[in-house]
Amino acid sequence: MSNSLKPASGILFTAAFALLFSISVRAADDWYPSRYGADDTLGAINQLSPAKVVQAARLVKTGKTYRLGVETGPAAPAYPPRQYALTVLQPGDGTGAPMGSNRATGNDDLLQTWMGIGSQLDGLGHMGIDHRYYNGLHARDFVTAKGLTRLSTDKLPPIVTRGVLLDMAKHLGQPIVAQGTAFNRAEIEAAAKAQAVTLEAGDVVLFHTGWLNLAESDSARFMAGEPGLGLDGARYLAQLGVVAIGSDSWAVEVIPHEDPSQVFPVHPELLAKNGVYILENMDTRALAADGVYEFLFVLGQPRFVGAVQAVINPVAIH
Amino acid sequence: MSNSLKPASGILFTAAFALLFSISVRAADDWYPSRYGADDTLGAINQLSPAKVVQAARLVKTGKTYRLGVETGPAAPAYPPRQYALTVLQPGDGTGAPMGSNRATGNDDLLQTWMGIGSQLDGLGHMGIDHRYYNGLHARDFVTAKGLTRLSTDKLPPIVTRGVLLDMAKHLGQPIVAQGTAFNRAEIEAAAKAQAVTLEAGDVVLFHTGWLNLAESDSARFMAGEPGLGLDGARYLAQLGVVAIGSDSWAVEVIPHEDPSQVFPVHPELLAKNGVYILENMDTRALAADGVYEFLFVLGQPRFVGAVQAVINPVAIH
Amino acid sequence: MSNSLKPASGILFTAAFALLFSISVRAADDWYPSRYGADDTLGAINQLSPAKVVQAARLVKTGKTYRLGVETGPAAPAYPPRQYALTVLQPGDGTGAPMGSNRATGNDDLLQTWMGIGSQLDGLGHMGIDHRYYNGLHARDFVTAKGLTRLSTDKLPPIVTRGVLLDMAKHLGQPIVAQGTAFNRAEIEAAAKAQAVTLEAGDVVLFHTGWLNLAESDSARFMAGEPGLGLDGARYLAQLGVVAIGSDSWAVEVIPHEDPSQVFPVHPELLAKNGVYILENMDTRALAADGVYEFLFVLGQPRFVGAVQAVINPVAIH
Amino acid sequence: MSNSLKPASGILFTAAFALLFSISVRAADDWYPSRYGADDTLGAINQLSPAKVVQAARLVKTGKTYRLGVETGPAAPAYPPRQYALTVLQPGDGTGAPMGSNRATGNDDLLQTWMGIGSQLDGLGHMGIDHRYYNGLHARDFVTAKGLTRLSTDKLPPIVTRGVLLDMAKHLGQPIVAQGTAFNRAEIEAAAKAQAVTLEAGDVVLFHTGWLNLAESDSARFMAGEPGLGLDGARYLAQLGVVAIGSDSWAVEVIPHEDPSQVFPVHPELLAKNGVYILENMDTRALAADGVYEFLFVLGQPRFVGAVQAVINPVAIH
Repeated sequence: MSNSLKPASGILFTAAFALLFSISVRAADDWYPSRYGADDTLGAINQLSPAKVVQAARLVKTGKTYRLGVETGPAAPAYPPRQYALTVLQPGDGTGAPMGSNRATGNDDLLQTWMGIGSQLDGLGHMGIDHRYYNGLHARDFVTAKGLTRLSTDKLPPIVTRGVLLDMAKHLGQPIVAQGTAFNRAEIEAAAKAQAVTLEAGDVVLFHTGWLNLAESDSARFMAGEPGLGLDGARYLAQLGVVAIGSDSWAVEVIPHEDPSQVFPVHPELLAKNGVYILENMDTRALAADGVYEFLFVLGQPRFVGAVQAVINPVAIH
Repeated sequence: MSNSLKPASGILFTAAFALLFSISVRAADDWYPSRYGADDTLGAINQLSPAKVVQAARLVKTGKTYRLGVETGPAAPAYPPRQYALTVLQPGDGTGAPMGSNRATGNDDLLQTWMGIGSQLDGLGHMGIDHRYYNGLHARDFVTAKGLTRLSTDKLPPIVTRGVLLDMAKHLGQPIVAQGTAFNRAEIEAAAKAQAVTLEAGDVVLFHTGWLNLAESDSARFMAGEPGLGLDGARYLAQLGVVAIGSDSWAVEVIPHEDPSQVFPVHPELLAKNGVYILENMDTRALAADGVYEFLFVLGQPRFVGAVQAVINPVAIH
Repeated sequence: MSNSLKPASGILFTAAFALLFSISVRAADDWYPSRYGADDTLGAINQLSPAKVVQAARLVKTGKTYRLGVETGPAAPAYPPRQYALTVLQPGDGTGAPMGSNRATGNDDLLQTWMGIGSQLDGLGHMGIDHRYYNGLHARDFVTAKGLTRLSTDKLPPIVTRGVLLDMAKHLGQPIVAQGTAFNRAEIEAAAKAQAVTLEAGDVVLFHTGWLNLAESDSARFMAGEPGLGLDGARYLAQLGVVAIGSDSWAVEVIPHEDPSQVFPVHPELLAKNGVYILENMDTRALAADGVYEFLFVLGQPRFVGAVQAVINPVAIH
Repeated sequence: MSNSLKPASGILFTAAFALLFSISVRAADDWYPSRYGADDTLGAINQLSPAKVVQAARLVKTGKTYRLGVETGPAAPAYPPRQYALTVLQPGDGTGAPMGSNRATGNDDLLQTWMGIGSQLDGLGHMGIDHRYYNGLHARDFVTAKGLTRLSTDKLPPIVTRGVLLDMAKHLGQPIVAQGTAFNRAEIEAAAKAQAVTLEAGDVVLFHTGWLNLAESDSARFMAGEPGLGLDGARYLAQLGVVAIGSDSWAVEVIPHEDPSQVFPVHPELLAKNGVYILENMDTRALAADGVYEFLFVLGQPRFVGAVQAVINPVAIH
């Protein structure tokens, strides 16, 4: 590029940027402060209530429990460059000498893992728009290399409420729902109706798609796409006041995205704009096999200080 | 050493080893196979049952939930050399450029931690006697540097059952029970009786001692000792068939130990000999403050593959 | 902010940004392509030559060697949030059983460390200007979370050349030169003259300031500031064609900076604009004590693939 | 076990242990204290001397430098379960906002690696016999999970001396010497004679076998065996007083081992019994191609505190 052309192109670029900038400024303020107040950091967790807990506990009938977490290990579904290494060791001098007159021996473990691996909770600091996160919080106000100072997953109370499984595989008659299949308001309402369940504020909604079966049999295909929530479906569920949305897939949202120019649009729609939590890689297979569509959902996430996400293993109790 | 001497010394060696071996075998075999069968790997989790879940769910009355996990971070109670480091980062080129037409941005996290830190579950592979662990499994049969091949905490089903809090601080009239105070059969029975609760098979028993208050105010004193379970108390509870025993202290067992020649004797007594799980650094303060002694206990541990222990956050629901 | 004000302020902001942008565009292109060609990735390492190696080898007279690396451990000087953890372990089953008829035993180690800790080499991908690094390379062209694809320190050839120590402590008559003391062209020329040494292309220049003594005695003061290279001095040395510049301080450059509005200005001046490497926390004490001002400098950095920096221990041989 | 039986079995135990102990003591004491004194921790590094440095520096003739370190990354040759992960990140809030009026930007890196990967130095604490290491030091005296308190590689002075390459590939007329080919005294003397070089005390000896070519082309075959030093060859070189022995293979010693009942017998022979250091995965290809058999060898290992091993990149200068 010759020097004489630079000023001109600089001006053009500036004009274009100005346009972009004014658009984004205008678009930005629709979505904050949040409906839970300008200082809120919990989002849809505000929809939880003791009354809801009591109601949900009444769903326990058979006493059967379901662990929704998958094995989180070196072979777990992971979005690059996320990885996992666990080392079992016996801190000491390596001689294996038992301790004390009771001859105690032991093992310890050291974990090096990305949090966004296996079954995981996406906290409200995970994805945002233009560096603004839930409630309009800007990255500069809470993101540090040593941990989030707000919105970290260790700050969350337990999520105990009614869980609802929407068996999309059954509803669509596909053992594994095809990738790119979007779940929007129409599909969600139809599936709920077919199951005779009414979604309510404070619920945790889980989609069963069969997609998780691919994690073991064909992990490349598993990671290449997935059926899942569309933008309209996300808005619909958020509007209803659900606390968290999960799926038996790694991103919960439909891939390829509905609008190919967008990147993970459902994530910031739920997390940033609505304070709704995302539960990835939920193992819904046993629930679906048993036809259990309503249950007591209990999540006590490990409280790793400052964490953006959390490896979790929620329990469904029926 | 000349070759001619080898056979002889080899024989001597063998004889000596045989002698040693027969002694240790004799001492060892009292405690295995386990009462749950020679192939069992779950221990007292076998005491769980759907019926027990249904009963426990009926304890939910107020709908109030209690998170029992403490913050697990760089300042969490940790037995040396255990430590914790979490790093929040934004995988990419560092420019902070938003992604897609939706201008998505995000944060990720990388965790480097020992598992035996903060609120933690001790799996049955954590402590043993002379390298034998639960059900007599020898270390050589399941311990590898890349993870336990048996007895790892990721293999456990959820623990959903009745939780019972024994408020030893209240019972003994000490806001913080003195270190070295052993809870044995007599103390446990007395406390249960005072609370009008009967311990049963399948229960999770938690001791409230007030000791956790020191974790924040005086961590050196916190780590230097603690009130806790004595050997006789451990045997008593194991006999009853409890699934897990927790406390608001870092080791659950009394320190200094009752017999100063021993090292963490309650750990292998519970884990190896009885298959009873240990729950350390449980935050029982809110339960004690509310006088909630019976509740629905729900633990879905993160399923880190091969892990010896697990950082946990069980939920008590009342 | 009311909606009616937004468009106007948007325009003002845009105008200001346009101004900034056109300035930065104009300022940016002075400094690349580099003097070593538009495709060069090695920078001032191009000044090395076999002839220079042969000359430098002739400086070996007494046969005394000096290790310039400091201990890099948990207590090493580290810019936050950098930290270090090393774990010694014995991969296996923990029994300590010796291996084979030769009864071999062993130890291994697992290192978790930031590279920018202790004695370190700053590679050309470490600091840049507006996300442009050496030779105008933009971050998007070589920075990934799994490692740099260009400019990483593993790609560098050994640095073997003449090393020159400038003993600023002696020259200024201060055992520990005061923080904020800038070494610019005048100071560098005067110190070199006092030592009767002429700086040349291909040299590695090390400043001795005594500052490293504080790392052990008063690490807070050590990290709070330092004497060091000023911008003019950096340009002077770069102009001369030196390969790398080191110091017995953690940043090599003067802190507080000469212009308080700037942040580590000497780093991108050397790395990005001139391809000159930076050697931090060099232990120059023994060289200074012996009055050794010219020596054979040898650096073979550990070749960690994709690394931005490298923990190093160059050797000075006299 | 009843109390009355304890004294008797205690006596039996003691007798058996005494028997065992006297056998192992007899076997053990041949090899320590070391020839460098009962308190020595440096081993054959004692053979280094200023005079040797001066002599070695005279070997510098062409000024050509050779980096002996291979790339140490996720694909580097690694003995299981060793692994490597490097993460490049930009500590901050993730917005990519430049710093200061000089608009500085930067990258940092976090390394998680086993030290025994890629090109590595085995320190004297790496392998021993029955938990005794160099100079008879017992593991209990210096091995801790947080690092070795003695014999760690950070304590070593630079190794600057004459390097000698023995081109075994050329000598045996095999571009890649067959696995299982042992280099013992006869082979070493013959190769040295063919190259007209006399091995001396204080030398670093490197074997070129061509084996490293397999690391890239066939890593399974590379790790499955190798040509290398035999026990007799190890003793011969140790006797001569060499400081360190390296090879272009991952273990330096011949695999399969000469005596199949043994496990890495050359390692403790060199490290524990003789204090001779081991340099693994040395890239000797360029030296061999140039026919450079004598050179100035310079190793400044990164000084990771407490480390058993060290990732290294020694420099050969000719």
